[in-house]
Amino acid sequence: MYTGGYHKKLEELFKRSNVKLGDSVIIQTSNETHTGILLPRYEYADDNHLVLKLKNGYNIGINLRKIKSIKKIVEKAGTSDKHSIDYNYVDNFSFESTDQNFSKGDLPNLSLLSTGGTISSKIDYRTGGVMAALTAKELNDSIPELVKIANIDPEVVLTEYSENIKPEHWSLIAKKVANNILSSKYEGIIVSHGTDTMHYTSAALSFALQNPPIPVVLVGAQRSSDRPSSDASLNLIGACTFATKSKVSGVFVAMHYSISDDVIACHIGTRVRKNHTSRRDAFHSIDVSPFSLVKKDQIEISNQYTDLIFQQRSKSFERMIVRPNFENKVSLLKFYPGFDCRMIDYCVKSGQKAIIFEGTGLGHINKGCFSHIKSAIDNGILIFMTSQCIWGRTALTVYDTGRDLLNLGVIPLSNMTSETALVKAMWCLGNLKEVKDVVKMMTTNIANEFTKRITVD
Amino acid sequence: MYTGGYHKKLEELFKRSNVKLGDSVIIQTSNETHTGILLPRYEYADDNHLVLKLKNGYNIGINLRKIKSIKKIVEKAGTSDKHSIDYNYVDNFSFESTDQNFSKGDLPNLSLLSTGGTISSKIDYRTGGVMAALTAKELNDSIPELVKIANIDPEVVLTEYSENIKPEHWSLIAKKVANNILSSKYEGIIVSHGTDTMHYTSAALSFALQNPPIPVVLVGAQRSSDRPSSDASLNLIGACTFATKSKVSGVFVAMHYSISDDVIACHIGTRVRKNHTSRRDAFHSIDVSPFSLVKKDQIEISNQYTDLIFQQRSKSFERMIVRPNFENKVSLLKFYPGFDCRMIDYCVKSGQKAIIFEGTGLGHINKGCFSHIKSAIDNGILIFMTSQCIWGRTALTVYDTGRDLLNLGVIPLSNMTSETALVKAMWCLGNLKEVKDVVKMMTTNIANEFTKRITVD
Repeated sequence: MYTGGYHKKLEELFKRSNVKLGDSVIIQTSNETHTGILLPRYEYADDNHLVLKLKNGYNIGINLRKIKSIKKIVEKAGTSDKHSIDYNYVDNFSFESTDQNFSKGDLPNLSLLSTGGTISSKIDYRTGGVMAALTAKELNDSIPELVKIANIDPEVVLTEYSENIKPEHWSLIAKKVANNILSSKYEGIIVSHGTDTMHYTSAALSFALQNPPIPVVLVGAQRSSDRPSSDASLNLIGACTFATKSKVSGVFVAMHYSISDDVIACHIGTRVRKNHTSRRDAFHSIDVSPFSLVKKDQIEISNQYTDLIFQQRSKSFERMIVRPNFENKVSLLKFYPGFDCRMIDYCVKSGQKAIIFEGTGLGHINKGCFSHIKSAIDNGILIFMTSQCIWGRTALTVYDTGRDLLNLGVIPLSNMTSETALVKAMWCLGNLKEVKDVVKMMTTNIANEFTKRITVD
Repeated sequence: MYTGGYHKKLEELFKRSNVKLGDSVIIQTSNETHTGILLPRYEYADDNHLVLKLKNGYNIGINLRKIKSIKKIVEKAGTSDKHSIDYNYVDNFSFESTDQNFSKGDLPNLSLLSTGGTISSKIDYRTGGVMAALTAKELNDSIPELVKIANIDPEVVLTEYSENIKPEHWSLIAKKVANNILSSKYEGIIVSHGTDTMHYTSAALSFALQNPPIPVVLVGAQRSSDRPSSDASLNLIGACTFATKSKVSGVFVAMHYSISDDVIACHIGTRVRKNHTSRRDAFHSIDVSPFSLVKKDQIEISNQYTDLIFQQRSKSFERMIVRPNFENKVSLLKFYPGFDCRMIDYCVKSGQKAIIFEGTGLGHINKGCFSHIKSAIDNGILIFMTSQCIWGRTALTVYDTGRDLLNLGVIPLSNMTSETALVKAMWCLGNLKEVKDVVKMMTTNIANEFTKRITVD
C-alpha cells in the first residue's frame, strides 16, 4: 500500500486502522476529535505528524503520539481534494487556540486571523505545519515582544498560499473580520496573509468593510518565520503596534519600509502594491506616501493625508458597512503591441460582466481594438481603463486615441491601480444590480482608491 | 458637401477638383507629387494645410499655397482607412528632408528616424503636422543646441502614436535602422518614438539588431514639443550627446532622469519600463541603475555594468546580427485572483504559440489553472513565467506552487520584465523553427534581458 511517504509507525497505524490516503476519517487524540481527509506527506514534512485536510479547506498536522484511534467514514472518492468553501464555518468552527495568553492584564486585545502564506509557514505547506506557528504559545515563543504590545487571540481562517486566494475567500475573510469586530472584544484585527495577492485582499476588505470602528491590518512576510532573515517578526510587531495605537480606523497593510529592520510602513489598503518578488520592502504605496511609519512604539502619520477618507477609532459600529459579496466575472486585460483583440470577444462570449484594461501610458489601446470594444459595450459589458505604468493617472482627453475610447464608452479610472480596479469592479457587481449604479460606484471615491494630485508631477 | 472642417479656400479647391474626403488622390505641388487618401481636418489643425494619408500609413500636411493640382484616382471606399504596411517602402520611399544642415563642418553625423509620438507632435496627429517638427530646419529652430552636437539627418519612418505600434512596425524600424547603420554615414542612430510602448520597441530592436557597431538611441517626450514644459528638447539633446560620445554601442532609451531639466538617463533597451503616466522621469531601469547619465556634455557610465554584454563602438559591421522578424501569436496574460483559467484554453484555440504569464510574487498561479496549463503545454504551447511585481526575479523552486508549475513544464524567466519577455518570445518564434531552439534562446542572455543579482536584496 502506498502511504504517501509516511514513516513506518504511521504506515502501521494506517494498516491497523484499515484507512488509506484520501479516505475521510475521524481521528481521536488525547483531548480532541478531528474529522477530515487523510493527505499524503509532502517533502520536508515532519516524520511524526500525519496531515488531515479539514472540511473547511485547511490542513492540520496531528502528532502520532497523540492519536488514540483513526476511523474511516468515507472511502476515498475521485474528487476528494476538491473542496468548496463552507460559508457557515465561521460560526461553527472551533479553532485550535491555546487561550492561556489571551486577555491578561491591562494590555489591549487583538484578533489575529491567519489566512496562510509565508508568515505562517514554518515547514512546507501541505504538511499542516502552518497551524503550529499560530498558536499563542508559538507566537509568544518566537516573537516575545508581542506579549508587551497586546493580548493576541489567534484564529485560523484559511491556510492558503495567497496565489490560491479567490474572490470567495475575500468574502469569507471579510465576514470573519466583521464578526470579530462585532464581538467588541478587540482593539484591532490583524489578518496574516501570503504576500503574493495581499494587496488584492486589502483592497477587497477596504470595499467589503467600510468605516470599520477599529483598524484592520493585513500583514505578511517575504521570508518564512523559521528563517534567520525572516521579516515576519518585525512586520507583526509593527502591525500590532499600529492596530493598538492608531487613532484612525480603516484597512491597512503593514510591511517593512526599507530593507533594514527598523521601520514598518502602514499602507492604505487600496493604494498598495507588491513591487518586488523577494525584498522585505516589496510593498509600496502608489502615488502617495505610506499612511504611517511605525518606528519602535512610535507611529508617524504622513502629513499628505489631510484630504483622505478616514474615520477616527470608535466604539460604535454605527457607520460600519459590511457588503462582502464579489462577482467573479470580471477580467483584467493588459494591453501590449500585438494584443489579440479577439480576447475582448472571448470575454463577451464567456459571460464576463466587466473588463479592466491596463492600457499604455495615459490609458491607450491600439485603434485596431476599437471595433471589438464597441461590440463588447454594445453587448452590455462595462469597460474600464487603468494604466500599466502603475504610477500616475489615466487621462483620455489628451490624445485622440483617448477621446476615441471615451466616445466608445470606455470609463477611465484615474489613478486607481489596476488591481484595486479589478477588485472594486468585482465588488460593485457583487453588490449592486443596476449597471448605472455600478458605473456611479466605480467612479466614486469610497476607500481612497482615488487620490488627489499629491505627488510632484 | 461635408469637407471635414476644412476652411473655405480648401473647400473650394476640393469642389473645383471634384474630390471629397476619403478619395485616393494625386497632388502636384510646386516641386513634388504625393499620392494618398484625403483625410478630414482634425481639431487643432492648421488652417492652411490639407491632410493626406500616404500608402505607407503616415499622414502629411500639404500647404495650400504649394498645391498646383489635385486629381482623383479612386473614389472613397468603405475600408479606406485600413492600410497594411508596405515592407518595401524603406527602399523606395523618398522622405522630406531639408538637407541644408546635414553634414557640415567637423561635427559627427546622426540619423534621426521618426516613428511618431508626442515628441514629434506640434499639433494634433491626424493633421499631418507631425512632419513639420522633423525637418532639419524645424529641429534647429526649436532646439538650437543640437547644431553644436551633431549634423542631424532626419527621416520619417512612421507617424504612429506608440499604442498603435505593432510587431510588424518593429521589423520595419529595425530594417530602417540596419540600413542606416550599413550606409556608414552615421556615428549613431536616434529613433524618436511615442513613449507608451517605447520600451517594447527598444526591447524589439535589442533582439532584432544585435551588436550594432554604433549606438541606437530611442527617445520620446512626455509633453509635446510646442508646450513650454516639454521635455522633448532636453531628451533629444541627451540622446544625441550619448549617441555621439558613448564609447559603447547597443540599443538604449534616453529620457529625463528626474523632474528637473538637467540630467538624462540612458537605459538599456531590454531593462527599461514606462512607470508613470505623465512625469518626465517616467522611464526607469528595472533591477539595475540606468546605464549612463548625461549631464550637459558629460557622460557618466554606471559602475554596476562591468558584467553586462556590450561591445565597443566600432567601424566594422562584422559582429552585427540583423534578424528583424517577429511572430504575432504570443499572448501576455496577467494572473489575478478570480482569473478565468479558460483564457488559457482560448489561447490554445486561437492558435497562440506561446504565453507569457505575469504571475504573482516569485511567479505563481492559482492551482485551479494547473490542468489548463498542462493541456496547453500538451498542445505544444510554450508557457513562460515572469512576475507582475516588476522588480526582482522569478523563483519557482521555493514554494510547492512553483515546483508544481516547473513540473508542468512552465519555464521561468528570472528577472526579464514581462514586456521584454513578450517581445523576445515574438522574436524567437519569428526567427527560429525548432521549439527546442526557441526555449534555449529564451533562456539565454542575449541583450542584458537577464542581469546578475546586482541590487541589494
